[in-house]
Amino acid sequence: MAYHHGDLRQALLAAAVELIADNGVHKLSLRECARRIGVSHAAPYRHFADKEALLAAIAADGFRRLSEVGEQAMDGAGAPLDRLRAYGEAYVRFALDEPVHYRVMFTGMIEGQHEELQREGDRAFGLLAGVAAELGGDAPLVDAVTAWSLVHGLAMLMLDRRLGDPPSGPETASLIEGVVGVLGVGLGRR
Amino acid sequence: MAYHHGDLRQALLAAAVELIADNGVHKLSLRECARRIGVSHAAPYRHFADKEALLAAIAADGFRRLSEVGEQAMDGAGAPLDRLRAYGEAYVRFALDEPVHYRVMFTGMIEGQHEELQREGDRAFGLLAGVAAELGGDAPLVDAVTAWSLVHGLAMLMLDRRLGDPPSGPETASLIEGVVGVLGVGLGRR
Repeated sequence: MAYHHGDLRQALLAAAVELIADNGVHKLSLRECARRIGVSHAAPYRHFADKEALLAAIAADGFRRLSEVGEQAMDGAGAPLDRLRAYGEAYVRFALDEPVHYRVMFTGMIEGQHEELQREGDRAFGLLAGVAAELGGDAPLVDAVTAWSLVHGLAMLMLDRRLGDPPSGPETASLIEGVVGVLGVGLGRR
Repeated sequence: MAYHHGDLRQALLAAAVELIADNGVHKLSLRECARRIGVSHAAPYRHFADKEALLAAIAADGFRRLSEVGEQAMDGAGAPLDRLRAYGEAYVRFALDEPVHYRVMFTGMIEGQHEELQREGDRAFGLLAGVAAELGGDAPLVDAVTAWSLVHGLAMLMLDRRLGDPPSGPETASLIEGVVGVLGVGLGRR
């Protein structure tokens, strides 16, 4: 099969996401991606130096989309705390909607420096840090880490089926809203 | 080398934890554990049916020790919210102190049912759910999931070096206290 340059890159990324969904990230190989879309074993190397570079591209794509859904969610809400909660809920929904991307974003298998991934990860955390700073607390970075810990933990527990399965439907939406709500008043006041 | 029955089991578990620390959980094998402690390739099968059973034993051990540190932490503090925070801080410290156990407790590689693991996991979550119920909120299970999400997320972000490295020292203690503190009053009030 013949691909134009940019199309091949996208096709490889899509094939990789499918293969990870089927077999997990550890079994992924550039060779298997090539086989999946019917190109030569050498073809992937035009775009990705190695498996880690492919994973970094998936993770960068994930952080970019996370920032997009976060920005959209915060667009509709006014006060900083409302916007932080809106981002938090959108964050968990993103992880549930794109489980492969989310796991790759947080896999320990990307060890080197990858410019695009660094930039997109910084942007996603920057959004969070920005709205945390607007809360006006004494330790805005601690507030940002608090929010991130909460939504990352909930996302991982849900993806890992620690809170029952499957993670979807109105009960899930209500749980997400309830958990993220702690950012407002804490458990002591509700 | 000759081991008494119980000693061999403990030696295999200790070897597995070392091997996971060195090479990650995916590369672990019963064969390599046997080699590490100088017993025959067949010896591990006296205690563990397969790699998953070995991982389940490590995870069960981890949950048991987590419950112990949680109980100790809650022993010293009075009001339910103080005890919840004390458990939360002890939870994150446990993850940092025993990173291999913590990762194995939450690996997706244990898929079957393992009685001891189920029991110890239930006990650790039960402790959390118990103190969350004492808070007297409308949705104690949501409160328990909130606390668990927060400390699991912080533990994973720290173990994955997302918050700088290494995760130790007074700054880390202060960050843990700050993050877990949200359970008290939320970000809006501090």
